[in-house]
Amino acid sequence: MGSTWGNKFKVAIFGESHGEGIGAVIDGLPAGIDIDPERIQQELNRRAARGNPLATPRKEGDRIEILSGVFNGKTTGAPLAGLIRNENTRSGDYAKTKDLMRPGHADYASSIRYHGFQDYRGGGHFSGRLTAPLVFAGAVAKAVLRAIAPEIAIGSRIIAIGTKEDQKIKNWKEYEALTKGFINPEFPLYTPELEATMKQEIIAAMEEADSVGGVVEGFVTGLQPGVGNPFFESIESRLAGLLFSIPAVKGVTFGAGFEIASRHGSEVNDPLAINGSKIETLSNNNGGINGGISNGMPVVFQVAFKPTPSIGKEQQTIDLKKMAAATLSIQGRHDPCIVVRAFPVVEAVTAICLADFLI
Amino acid sequence: MGSTWGNKFKVAIFGESHGEGIGAVIDGLPAGIDIDPERIQQELNRRAARGNPLATPRKEGDRIEILSGVFNGKTTGAPLAGLIRNENTRSGDYAKTKDLMRPGHADYASSIRYHGFQDYRGGGHFSGRLTAPLVFAGAVAKAVLRAIAPEIAIGSRIIAIGTKEDQKIKNWKEYEALTKGFINPEFPLYTPELEATMKQEIIAAMEEADSVGGVVEGFVTGLQPGVGNPFFESIESRLAGLLFSIPAVKGVTFGAGFEIASRHGSEVNDPLAINGSKIETLSNNNGGINGGISNGMPVVFQVAFKPTPSIGKEQQTIDLKKMAAATLSIQGRHDPCIVVRAFPVVEAVTAICLADFLI
Amino acid sequence: MGSTWGNKFKVAIFGESHGEGIGAVIDGLPAGIDIDPERIQQELNRRAARGNPLATPRKEGDRIEILSGVFNGKTTGAPLAGLIRNENTRSGDYAKTKDLMRPGHADYASSIRYHGFQDYRGGGHFSGRLTAPLVFAGAVAKAVLRAIAPEIAIGSRIIAIGTKEDQKIKNWKEYEALTKGFINPEFPLYTPELEATMKQEIIAAMEEADSVGGVVEGFVTGLQPGVGNPFFESIESRLAGLLFSIPAVKGVTFGAGFEIASRHGSEVNDPLAINGSKIETLSNNNGGINGGISNGMPVVFQVAFKPTPSIGKEQQTIDLKKMAAATLSIQGRHDPCIVVRAFPVVEAVTAICLADFLI
Amino acid sequence: MGSTWGNKFKVAIFGESHGEGIGAVIDGLPAGIDIDPERIQQELNRRAARGNPLATPRKEGDRIEILSGVFNGKTTGAPLAGLIRNENTRSGDYAKTKDLMRPGHADYASSIRYHGFQDYRGGGHFSGRLTAPLVFAGAVAKAVLRAIAPEIAIGSRIIAIGTKEDQKIKNWKEYEALTKGFINPEFPLYTPELEATMKQEIIAAMEEADSVGGVVEGFVTGLQPGVGNPFFESIESRLAGLLFSIPAVKGVTFGAGFEIASRHGSEVNDPLAINGSKIETLSNNNGGINGGISNGMPVVFQVAFKPTPSIGKEQQTIDLKKMAAATLSIQGRHDPCIVVRAFPVVEAVTAICLADFLI
Repeated sequence: MGSTWGNKFKVAIFGESHGEGIGAVIDGLPAGIDIDPERIQQELNRRAARGNPLATPRKEGDRIEILSGVFNGKTTGAPLAGLIRNENTRSGDYAKTKDLMRPGHADYASSIRYHGFQDYRGGGHFSGRLTAPLVFAGAVAKAVLRAIAPEIAIGSRIIAIGTKEDQKIKNWKEYEALTKGFINPEFPLYTPELEATMKQEIIAAMEEADSVGGVVEGFVTGLQPGVGNPFFESIESRLAGLLFSIPAVKGVTFGAGFEIASRHGSEVNDPLAINGSKIETLSNNNGGINGGISNGMPVVFQVAFKPTPSIGKEQQTIDLKKMAAATLSIQGRHDPCIVVRAFPVVEAVTAICLADFLI
Repeated sequence: MGSTWGNKFKVAIFGESHGEGIGAVIDGLPAGIDIDPERIQQELNRRAARGNPLATPRKEGDRIEILSGVFNGKTTGAPLAGLIRNENTRSGDYAKTKDLMRPGHADYASSIRYHGFQDYRGGGHFSGRLTAPLVFAGAVAKAVLRAIAPEIAIGSRIIAIGTKEDQKIKNWKEYEALTKGFINPEFPLYTPELEATMKQEIIAAMEEADSVGGVVEGFVTGLQPGVGNPFFESIESRLAGLLFSIPAVKGVTFGAGFEIASRHGSEVNDPLAINGSKIETLSNNNGGINGGISNGMPVVFQVAFKPTPSIGKEQQTIDLKKMAAATLSIQGRHDPCIVVRAFPVVEAVTAICLADFLI
Repeated sequence: MGSTWGNKFKVAIFGESHGEGIGAVIDGLPAGIDIDPERIQQELNRRAARGNPLATPRKEGDRIEILSGVFNGKTTGAPLAGLIRNENTRSGDYAKTKDLMRPGHADYASSIRYHGFQDYRGGGHFSGRLTAPLVFAGAVAKAVLRAIAPEIAIGSRIIAIGTKEDQKIKNWKEYEALTKGFINPEFPLYTPELEATMKQEIIAAMEEADSVGGVVEGFVTGLQPGVGNPFFESIESRLAGLLFSIPAVKGVTFGAGFEIASRHGSEVNDPLAINGSKIETLSNNNGGINGGISNGMPVVFQVAFKPTPSIGKEQQTIDLKKMAAATLSIQGRHDPCIVVRAFPVVEAVTAICLADFLI
Repeated sequence: MGSTWGNKFKVAIFGESHGEGIGAVIDGLPAGIDIDPERIQQELNRRAARGNPLATPRKEGDRIEILSGVFNGKTTGAPLAGLIRNENTRSGDYAKTKDLMRPGHADYASSIRYHGFQDYRGGGHFSGRLTAPLVFAGAVAKAVLRAIAPEIAIGSRIIAIGTKEDQKIKNWKEYEALTKGFINPEFPLYTPELEATMKQEIIAAMEEADSVGGVVEGFVTGLQPGVGNPFFESIESRLAGLLFSIPAVKGVTFGAGFEIASRHGSEVNDPLAINGSKIETLSNNNGGINGGISNGMPVVFQVAFKPTPSIGKEQQTIDLKKMAAATLSIQGRHDPCIVVRAFPVVEAVTAICLADFLI
């Protein structure tokens, strides 16, 4: 249990890193939504590792086949299923180290949870590869949003790689510009000058057979006020639930995030104002959400990714079968920094969340 | 929609700040669990404002009446319903300012969401008062956990009030000691010497008719490894979903939180080790969770609370009816710092989350 | 688990026959729906035993108190909770026979399910008394339907008491007349002349300290075509699920019911026709539903109620504590035929089902 | 929405009659369950039309490919996905008649529901072909039950074809014998002598280019007492919900069914008795369920199937595009009586239901 989500836009994801394939079934789609397979493929390509020197050398084709739910280029209202066949798997990499629990990975926790029956090859169902079905579902969600709420735009940017941080955006109106696109959409920065510095941070980690973490900021503009609910079905609750579903995420904040906790109400209460016929807030410390409900301002949130736990550096661990201490240098093909592939996933789950609220 | 949660431990909360009463219905309880009404009342008393000079002067009796689901002192397996009658409501405080949208509150977002039909008195269903039903449900969840997983202990501490911060706990074994109790359980600090400083931060805000935020750390010891799921039903996803349900929460992190994003894998991957017959990790940067599943270490997480948005200081806002700019000085009785009452709520939703996983 | 239902109109019922009270919490209501407490009370009165000689002599006041979710006579969008205090309980009736499993009742099955912790007094949570919260929720659902789909009318009629049957209605247009009301709304018959015969069937059973079953037909007119879903969320699946939730129901059929199974396709396929600007079917053997979705014809369904299992006649049973054969003559106050009080419950769950589809 | 079901054994089915393929994703499986692909294939073969003269001449290979969730022959605990490619589709049969609404079919209702975007070829997602994914999920559920409750046996028999009925089984102990197998498992009858008569009923309908309905009885032996819940999650509610998900089902009854409604309590209350160390009931009019919970007796239920609506005989209908009366003789390949292929589907959804209760 754990791979099914949604009230109205229901997603069930499946697959393992080295099994037959991965995919998703989406139930609850309105009929008549345009589905352009090429546009969906492009979203998957954004996530896939395609010879990017900063990403795993595994060649992931990630060709999506739509199995159902689309007829004459439009959704039928029946479940939409998509399948990505796994290719280029080198499962042999894993068999020899299957009893060595990789630190920071789900190996030990899942061995207990599934009594040793989990597919250990490449992390199995816990692999970051399962973010491809999330991106697929997100691409379908974006198609829904284009049809039912075309004013919504979803974007994301890298705000930190390791210790290198981009600046905060104080004026919320700037998010509207950012949704138009970044100078380098494959490395989206508010301050493009930081690109070399940040990439160097990744390369430095890679050269030490190590990895590095980072932070992504997601944002949504054009979301009408009045969407969401109090308590368990708040935008924050539901979006955070999805964001923490992304492997390696360890923190989620909205608006001014943890900084808000250090401040006075008079500093961070966002004063309301009338601008022409629109109601706005002067600041956006609440990240576009009050009481779990959108207030018309950009929804802004930050997502902390830990460094990829797979590293070549020797680590201390245990051999679960022998119940003995062991050391481990993880071979195989790994991302030195997951952040450079994770921001499309952040956008995807944001789209899923909004589609579920708005259908 | 938004006030119902759970797969196995199902909670439905209801009520408004100034209506007849507030409460919760809990479905899915195992039969035969000891329910001690006095123990439940004590949990509610921890949350209630009882003449604490740092809290609202509203006298909240918060007497819980159990309406169903308990027979001869034990759960029957049928839904357990609890009701708290509202007392000491001074609704007149609100009628005169109902069109003035309080900055930082749900007033504007909920006016749009519910087309003006929401109960505006004291924030209605959005009131922090609705955390009382959460604490009630949490107290029932704790009774369940005592019966089915008595080794689990849930605790919390204040780690920041405004800019005053307590230190991080690097050695995870210390959390076991903390679950035994704090020197001042009403102001739980790892470094008790900070109490005066932190309280002074609150008093300073109060004296300026302002408010201040803070951070709570929650922790769980004794949780066996192998609890949880990948993706949407991970411990992180589900617990974060509940924590963001608490009014005023704007951030949730696990383990080392955002700091993990600035580090290398070799620094924050928690190495596994064998300690006698037990498997442990040397550090606990992952906060006791890998791949969404518990690994046997303490589950540790941080929760950022914004300053109470209700402040006496004059604020800029709008009159929604007149669609005109306005100013507002919120009168009435308010907490200058929600944190001092929120940590029992953090514990309560943690208990709810664990009961749902473990039943 | 079992007392919570709904996707959009979420109901949680609670209470036991002889506990403090019974009630329901409804989440997911649109804001701004008129709630007239007297009208809700009238629905409850239809179900209550009020000195009706054919019903239990237990005097059930069934006064509903609305605790939340209504402000200035309208729904707020927050959960609406209602409470009925139990009165006039004579729990002593039950203590002495608690180990004697009443045949046809849930006593034995629930003793195993809840390990003996269930509230055995009057059937506890399994009591027919729990249909009062269903009727309450149904009355709220009807208020929703009046606002969002005023063309819908829900009705019901008795089609059998024991062996005495009223006739089938072949012309579906007659259902529209029936929703206008019956000659005796407390004993709704298509053929009013049968009233004395049917009542005699009940009296005869009562005089033998026995009980008798019967059949209710529910119907909905004015439901637009295109409501519902295939498979698990079909109208039939969801409505049947609710109808089987009513204690004593053992069968549910739609349209021509079991008779359809004995016929040829050419006899029971409902031919489509155009009547002015409307599309109709000539017959309605499918009961207004094709593929789980409404087709615009009246939704018609039949519900079989078994005889009340509580009878004064001596019955063979077991003493569960002694694990020995025993005999039992059930004393106390019981309905000789549940059907005369059940038809408002059938209507109530129908309203709940439709509100969930249409909100 | 409508193609996703389950609390613990979660099924999402997908596909259309003439699309790329059909299948299901099952989430919530325990790890370590033996999965024998050949055994699953055999269940599918029972449902498939394989040259049976009483079934459609469409040759359905129905080869299942398991895409995920199985490793080394056992479930991993991750979602198990299965795919059946469609073959031998003759979509041309449908294009020319797409505006002619087939009486008794979902054509009209789904045209309204999905605004004309549904895949009309062969009924699309509404096709009886979608029972193959149900049978696949049922085969997985049976594998789960073999592992966790091996004493459970699920069976079914044909109790009526058109007007030809087999007898009722009064002695519930006979169901145990029936679960051992039928003389002709492809046409399971309690009274095998009726086979020719019943088949003749089908052939007669076929020769008139017509179809005929029938009734299936499902039964479960070995189910321990104490499984199920009151109200919305009763065995009856949940099983009926699944049974009504099977296309063409119009009625579901438990135990003595509608007959119980005509009787006295003293006749149909099932007296309890002690047989050695076991508790039994003398009769089983309640079909093994009291208060929604199993009582240890066989669970017995009847399912009414309407005649296949696709018939060659000329029928009156409408052309939805022209909004004009029309006649229609359905060509193509159709089953004259769905019952001969439906009983494995009844068993499959019963297994799904029980797995969901028992996992």
